[in-house]
Amino acid sequence: MSDATNAGRGLRMGLLGVGMIGGSLVHALRRAGALSSVSGWDPDPEVLHYAMEHGLLDHAAATPAAVAREADLVVLAAPPAACAELFETLAPVLHPGQLLTDTVSVKRAPIAAARASLGALLPRYVPGHPIAGTEHNGPAAADPELFKGCATVLTPLPETDAAALKAIADLWRRAGARVLHMEAARHDAIFAATSHLPHFLAYSLVDFLSSLEEEGEIFRHAAGGFADFTRIASSSPRMWREVCAGNRDLLLPLLHRFETRLGGLRKLLEEQDWEHLEERFRHAKQERDAYLEDPGTWRDGSSDGN
Amino acid sequence: MSDATNAGRGLRMGLLGVGMIGGSLVHALRRAGALSSVSGWDPDPEVLHYAMEHGLLDHAAATPAAVAREADLVVLAAPPAACAELFETLAPVLHPGQLLTDTVSVKRAPIAAARASLGALLPRYVPGHPIAGTEHNGPAAADPELFKGCATVLTPLPETDAAALKAIADLWRRAGARVLHMEAARHDAIFAATSHLPHFLAYSLVDFLSSLEEEGEIFRHAAGGFADFTRIASSSPRMWREVCAGNRDLLLPLLHRFETRLGGLRKLLEEQDWEHLEERFRHAKQERDAYLEDPGTWRDGSSDGN
Repeated sequence: MSDATNAGRGLRMGLLGVGMIGGSLVHALRRAGALSSVSGWDPDPEVLHYAMEHGLLDHAAATPAAVAREADLVVLAAPPAACAELFETLAPVLHPGQLLTDTVSVKRAPIAAARASLGALLPRYVPGHPIAGTEHNGPAAADPELFKGCATVLTPLPETDAAALKAIADLWRRAGARVLHMEAARHDAIFAATSHLPHFLAYSLVDFLSSLEEEGEIFRHAAGGFADFTRIASSSPRMWREVCAGNRDLLLPLLHRFETRLGGLRKLLEEQDWEHLEERFRHAKQERDAYLEDPGTWRDGSSDGN
Repeated sequence: MSDATNAGRGLRMGLLGVGMIGGSLVHALRRAGALSSVSGWDPDPEVLHYAMEHGLLDHAAATPAAVAREADLVVLAAPPAACAELFETLAPVLHPGQLLTDTVSVKRAPIAAARASLGALLPRYVPGHPIAGTEHNGPAAADPELFKGCATVLTPLPETDAAALKAIADLWRRAGARVLHMEAARHDAIFAATSHLPHFLAYSLVDFLSSLEEEGEIFRHAAGGFADFTRIASSSPRMWREVCAGNRDLLLPLLHRFETRLGGLRKLLEEQDWEHLEERFRHAKQERDAYLEDPGTWRDGSSDGN
């Protein structure tokens, strides 16, 4: 079979996990004319049913293996914990002409699972993480515009096939994303800070407020800032449990350090050291405002790999 | 002089502190035809200049007393710490025919200041807090629609004149807000949880991230969730220093309790107790989703005092 990356026609995509991310990728790539057909599998039959009814999938498959057998491109858009089993299931049916990628928001864990299962097929696996999404989930939240203006981080292995990497990067670009290459460990460290810690804090805050006696009053009087601040606490609890599990070694020390830092700021409040408290607030504001003015210097393409 | 609350014509408004909140109130009340003129004072001459140039004010006054002398309605839209001095300055020039209100986001502190300074004029002071605003500040951020769909909490004293209370409530309604009455202590306790704690945490998170070695990388790769989560960390540091100072006795124990609760959640991560971690995440998501479905049961008007 000819290499799928060189196929002139659209690719046959096999989607494992039909949620917001996978569904959005299907929509975006269909719109770009990159796909000839999409076959999908999901552990939830209702999700599959929904995806068939709404034209997201052309075929619903009974097993992950059935999806993989017929695809030029296999996309694992599954929660982190599902990857190990999926790689194991896929390994015997995959062949070197296929492309394999994932969209998991931690990267070392799926890579370790791939290493353990894929053997000679490992070079065809391109680990990926689209930095996109909302607090919603499921195929109903799929949006062809989801990746527009966002970055997808690819964390290739030393073994990764250059053609496979290029093909996956091209697909993400056709889906509207910018592409960025990074080492998996660096990815996990950065996203522990920018994403996993904020999610943990948002959940913690709502968890805390709901424990207060005046809970009813508190939620009733929450203003717009509260809704924004806690938006990510409406994310999938299952998914975030798995992200925490998948990045625990990096998230845990970060949490410890954050707690220490928060305690330091609280001490300024305790000691009525208003000058220093305001200084820290001001510094935080400056950092955030600077970030907003230039939310991604990688947008200049300097880090945009091939 | 006839009671301003009964005046058929528009009121002459005197604005002390020409920022986003005061400016928005001017815009909204002008649009509603509630004002005949607006005179303003601000400690920052550039702010006054801007407000005159942009038609926000009809008169710029050299002193707070000059503003108060000519007004039917005096609005203190100043940072919390400025109130004590302003009440002191205003007391000798105010008269019982005038209305006096404030927009400060803590309520016990300005009330204590008013009590200390206003004497026989105390009944004409109606403490208020519009639950509206963005992370921006200054008169350029003023918006006639700011209060639309928002609530303004009034925290009248036992001494507060019923006619003054009704007049201020009516003005807020004409500005687009719903009006809610509450005791000042209860207000401060509720907003310590829904507003002051989230602001403190947002500042803490950005403060913490900016302390990390990989800071540049971290801010570069922050996604949409991060921007939302930290939006309130772009709020005015001076203002939030003063809110912290004004509500320190309630915010501090709340912070301590939050830290304990966060530590408990972190312990679940530490002990890899994924079932319980997910359960807590799920509970938080449910609470927030329920809040979004019914963001204010007071919207039914049952708490909407007159």
